Amino acid sequence: MGALDEGHCNEEEESCIELGFEREAETLAIEVAVKVLLQGLGEDINREGLQKTPLRVAKALREGTRGYQQKVTDIVQGALFPEAGLENGTGHAGGVGGLVIVRDLDLFSYCESCLLPFQVKCHIGYVPSGQRVLGLSKLSRVADIFTKRLQDPQRLANEICSALQHGIKPTGVSIVLQCSHIHFPTLESAFLEPSHHGFVKMLVSSGSGVFENEKADTWGDFLSLLKFRGIKVDKIHSRDSGDKCWCPSQTSSKVGPANSGMTTAVASILRSLGEDPLRKELLGTPNNFVKWLMNFKNPHLEMKLNGFVLGRMDALKSIGDDLVHSELNLSFWSQCEHHLLPFHGVVHIGYICTDGVDPIGKCFLQSIVHFHGFKLQVQERLTRQIAETASSVLGGDVMVVVEANHTCMISRGIEKIGSNTATVAVLGRFSTDPAFRTKFLQSIPKSTTTEG
Amino acid sequence: MGALDEGHCNEEEESCIELGFEREAETLAIEVAVKVLLQGLGEDINREGLQKTPLRVAKALREGTRGYQQKVTDIVQGALFPEAGLENGTGHAGGVGGLVIVRDLDLFSYCESCLLPFQVKCHIGYVPSGQRVLGLSKLSRVADIFTKRLQDPQRLANEICSALQHGIKPTGVSIVLQCSHIHFPTLESAFLEPSHHGFVKMLVSSGSGVFENEKADTWGDFLSLLKFRGIKVDKIHSRDSGDKCWCPSQTSSKVGPANSGMTTAVASILRSLGEDPLRKELLGTPNNFVKWLMNFKNPHLEMKLNGFVLGRMDALKSIGDDLVHSELNLSFWSQCEHHLLPFHGVVHIGYICTDGVDPIGKCFLQSIVHFHGFKLQVQERLTRQIAETASSVLGGDVMVVVEANHTCMISRGIEKIGSNTATVAVLGRFSTDPAFRTKFLQSIPKSTTTEG
Repeated sequence: MGALDEGHCNEEEESCIELGFEREAETLAIEVAVKVLLQGLGEDINREGLQKTPLRVAKALREGTRGYQQKVTDIVQGALFPEAGLENGTGHAGGVGGLVIVRDLDLFSYCESCLLPFQVKCHIGYVPSGQRVLGLSKLSRVADIFTKRLQDPQRLANEICSALQHGIKPTGVSIVLQCSHIHFPTLESAFLEPSHHGFVKMLVSSGSGVFENEKADTWGDFLSLLKFRGIKVDKIHSRDSGDKCWCPSQTSSKVGPANSGMTTAVASILRSLGEDPLRKELLGTPNNFVKWLMNFKNPHLEMKLNGFVLGRMDALKSIGDDLVHSELNLSFWSQCEHHLLPFHGVVHIGYICTDGVDPIGKCFLQSIVHFHGFKLQVQERLTRQIAETASSVLGGDVMVVVEANHTCMISRGIEKIGSNTATVAVLGRFSTDPAFRTKFLQSIPKSTTTEG
Repeated sequence: MGALDEGHCNEEEESCIELGFEREAETLAIEVAVKVLLQGLGEDINREGLQKTPLRVAKALREGTRGYQQKVTDIVQGALFPEAGLENGTGHAGGVGGLVIVRDLDLFSYCESCLLPFQVKCHIGYVPSGQRVLGLSKLSRVADIFTKRLQDPQRLANEICSALQHGIKPTGVSIVLQCSHIHFPTLESAFLEPSHHGFVKMLVSSGSGVFENEKADTWGDFLSLLKFRGIKVDKIHSRDSGDKCWCPSQTSSKVGPANSGMTTAVASILRSLGEDPLRKELLGTPNNFVKWLMNFKNPHLEMKLNGFVLGRMDALKSIGDDLVHSELNLSFWSQCEHHLLPFHGVVHIGYICTDGVDPIGKCFLQSIVHFHGFKLQVQERLTRQIAETASSVLGGDVMVVVEANHTCMISRGIEKIGSNTATVAVLGRFSTDPAFRTKFLQSIPKSTTTEG
């Protein structure tokens, strides 16, 4: 392929997409802090897979909070177009009073309470005035400025609303945000609570001008136009229902104070992003982030399988026909070692079981999955490790499929929101006989990947 | 909002996202060509809404074909990570033979036959070898290099496949692409064929190494893992079924040769993008593009409504209760004057009709919609114009909702793929009485926007 050898260097695009952050002092400071965090996790920062992790994390964080460096006026300037209103008669249309709505903008923000990214589906309405309308893509760009900061859903809605009201001075602005925050179980709660729900959701709104009053007719029109896109407008959080934080880190079990070197490192990251670690909402953030990260400390526990395995292997070798048995949709939670961001999804395990022998319990396989999930991982390794451990219990003929959503694929530069990955390991007869593979793959139901 | 006044200028981001194209000779050449096209359409290039259109079109085209300047080696270099294979036993896992799949990557490309963007859902599989795996996001970045060129689905699949095979030297690479090309009716066919289907779809595949042979077991595994994401793998186009072009411009009705000034301008655009207008597949492109563009020539026809209107208005004023009548899901096709890119969707029209009077025919309202759709437009204006024309027929109490997908919102820099817009015009009693608005809005069914 010509593209392998010719043309300009891709460096241009890479450094461009990441806004040249690589060479800045703030990026270097974050790198230093991330190294402290990795060491606190008991990791070898010189391991090849981790060598560039500090730089990757620093670039992703700075890119993800680039909104601190952006101005609304620069976006809306020159993007207001003349557009007539009604020529005659009573009513509103076009550039005078004709409601304009952009729905289903997929955005990502960072939770100010725990530093994890959260997903935002953003809906914006405004009523033009003065025979001027805004280029539609600018609504998305303005929302993005405030999304790319450390945020809380209600404040994010208020800031987008207020910025548009001041920036384009329309008759009114209305915002509805559907926010979804990943909610990791801890290693302990994952075992206790197998049906753990992986997301905390929150629906918020904000309005100005003719949308200032939540009871105004204009809100009714706006919400009707969201309703037929399947948005449950009756679930919108009341704007004055207090400011209880939505972040799951606030409700997680109390453990002692985190390693102070690590929390100091997180506070230094906050400063490098342009934030004040002493801002009220950020006071608990270093501790929350470190507590969460420590879920993935290289575990010292070892699975004691030996005695169990010997009994099983004998049982599996008893007489009878070979059957493919499947254990599907075992949930997993893990942490990408390249970006220190979550990936999660489901694991399907197939094995060959002699007729007349009871299949092994789902619970036990789920434990194997959790055991390998709760550390810094890459999906390929996770898949191999689950297969190898399962194989030692299940007699050598094992197939494992891991289906995952990677936060690093959807919240960073490439923002491939619907994308998902699958990795496969095949051991023993699954690798030599395609018929066994086909049988197992056919048992997997459609669209099993967990989604926000 | 602080963001209105402080911080760095957004110029940095804008020019960065667009790779500094603005200042280059190629961009200027495209601007000149676009001005020729606008004049050929009978437009005033100094009209405020059109003034920056040549620059916007030039930047969008160069950004959309930036793949010509990118190299695969720069992306995969340093992104191959060591990852062990199985420790012992028969089989494949991890960095030796464990199949890795990234599914549902949403990408956009440009059709080499007509220069319109087409949507690509890309699925990539590869089998690692030599204990090396590729960072997952790089699969998306490599695919993007070839997507951001003038393409045809099968060639695109082959190029991504071949680049990955050469770039990372795995045991094999497999590609499946679901491509979707917008298929505009012409103004004439829109009237003749009200159920016109708006997209041409094509499913293609490519494979190398252990995926070279379409009948290999490895393909079976790969396709099984796509199948349970709802992908109809049995519809995949055979790789050697000849090279009939999929582009709808190839089958559109024969009209005479297009304006030669305009076709010369399009050929100059092709050259500025780094292409050779004499490449076999591009020979017909200038003519195809101009023919398509001429659908949106400012129409000289005028709707002859006067006589009809008088009779109607009297009928509507007859005695009886006031009922809200709705005509839903009238399809529309239009062309965004800011980016010369299609937008399309549905129009809902509500009006107040006295009990006992027959509602006006759907066909007639559909004609009004087409009449205002087939020109260079913005959605706000289209909405107002439909409302005003409908009002002159329907007696003054009219509400119009236009729901649209904008190619310019999804194929350019911001790539908000799921996003969609709604605009509203309210005339007469719909503007003064919220109960009429609510009644009409409630009649609109869920998710009516047409999608690719």
